[in-house]
Amino acid sequence: MTEYDSAPAEVGHEAELPEDHPRYQDLLTRHRIEEGVKKGLTHLQGMHAEGRGSAFDYLLGEETIESADEAARAAAATLLLAERPVISVNGNVAALVPEETVELANAVDAAIEVNLFNRTPERIDAIEAHLREHGAQSVKGQTADAQIPGLEHARATVDADGIYAADVVVVPLEDGDRAEALDRMGKTEIVVDLNPLSRSPQVADVPIVDNIIRAVPNVTAHARELAGRDEETLEAIVAEFDREAALDAAEARIRNGELS
Amino acid sequence: MTEYDSAPAEVGHEAELPEDHPRYQDLLTRHRIEEGVKKGLTHLQGMHAEGRGSAFDYLLGEETIESADEAARAAAATLLLAERPVISVNGNVAALVPEETVELANAVDAAIEVNLFNRTPERIDAIEAHLREHGAQSVKGQTADAQIPGLEHARATVDADGIYAADVVVVPLEDGDRAEALDRMGKTEIVVDLNPLSRSPQVADVPIVDNIIRAVPNVTAHARELAGRDEETLEAIVAEFDREAALDAAEARIRNGELS
Repeated sequence: MTEYDSAPAEVGHEAELPEDHPRYQDLLTRHRIEEGVKKGLTHLQGMHAEGRGSAFDYLLGEETIESADEAARAAAATLLLAERPVISVNGNVAALVPEETVELANAVDAAIEVNLFNRTPERIDAIEAHLREHGAQSVKGQTADAQIPGLEHARATVDADGIYAADVVVVPLEDGDRAEALDRMGKTEIVVDLNPLSRSPQVADVPIVDNIIRAVPNVTAHARELAGRDEETLEAIVAEFDREAALDAAEARIRNGELS
Repeated sequence: MTEYDSAPAEVGHEAELPEDHPRYQDLLTRHRIEEGVKKGLTHLQGMHAEGRGSAFDYLLGEETIESADEAARAAAATLLLAERPVISVNGNVAALVPEETVELANAVDAAIEVNLFNRTPERIDAIEAHLREHGAQSVKGQTADAQIPGLEHARATVDADGIYAADVVVVPLEDGDRAEALDRMGKTEIVVDLNPLSRSPQVADVPIVDNIIRAVPNVTAHARELAGRDEETLEAIVAEFDREAALDAAEARIRNGELS
């Protein structure tokens, strides 16, 4: 990979990015994650992880493929049916889609919980403040009074009335170990990840193989459209969703899509 | 992509990384680039670029494929035949393969020149010092008295007796614009890049689609083996190398390789 392929020289604010640039979303993603590191929201390794994601997005064609849209619709129906849905936010999610996450939480009446792989009080505070700046009324993750079984202490820590008690969790860009541990707890997991072969989407009930910048607003749009439908309709949407087919379709696109 | 898939918790020194880990090279690469950012060698965007590279390496199978080994051999022959070869070093190259770059320079009698996309005096000084710590006797890039035509000033700046006057340049992980500009100057370019479709390998005379951590020592090993051969033999190795076939083979592996 080239060091700075398609990177703009220096951009102070994302409004300066050229919206008509053929790789606008990639530039926007990179800019937001870089700002996240500078603001102390995002761990340095999150920049590396985002780079990995950007390569998969490039191979996917940097668009929401049909199976990812179906997954987003199933995710919306799953969230609308949930009793105690929680959206888990880490440093990359906070940097990339703070406002979009708040909008999704509002659309499906979900809690937001900060949950970090490299957990420090400073980073949790910074992320909570960042989410509040982007409209969050309430942010969980500071109480830290429960543990996900089967993980080492720091990585297991969650809020007892948050992720621990949730029936449905949205875990975008989640570490594989934690996604597996949540799966063992019986949670219904909605994962956003650009590599269909990594463990998190593999264990998800609803894997959305898409860039989080596109996926989160898309789930929100589906949720708004589905709001008010009866449970039977929503359950049918969930039942019709085929997670294996969605993962296969994403892999096929990565294998066979046209690259530019 | 997951935020920290396969990342070790916290590693103070690369000797702590488990060499028997199935993704050892990926962990090592990530650790070195993270240290490079912390030491001021590597721009934050270099961490993102390395993440992109790591996704392509994963798709390649994290090994030197046969066509990449042939490219490394052709690169070695090209360097041994060169009159004024120069190895261009940016922040990622310095972080990832400082000692290996010095060894290659010694093996083929090439100059080393620091050449940065995001050029600052502090970063050039830090990279020069880092290369000297790893055995470099002489490092170009500080004189900065010539310009590559067709690029904006900061990105065009090189040493008149270095890259500007070189007949063969090794540009690992090079930006596409600069690779194209060097190509227009008539330089013979050896590029190391993990995405066979990005512009730098596309314009290279010898594109090596491989992880730089494997590729640079591999070129050195070929150079040592080829040292002392007559010009005719070296010229035949260069002539037999088929750059299009090498790029096609790398793309085919990315498309069709087994993923784990």
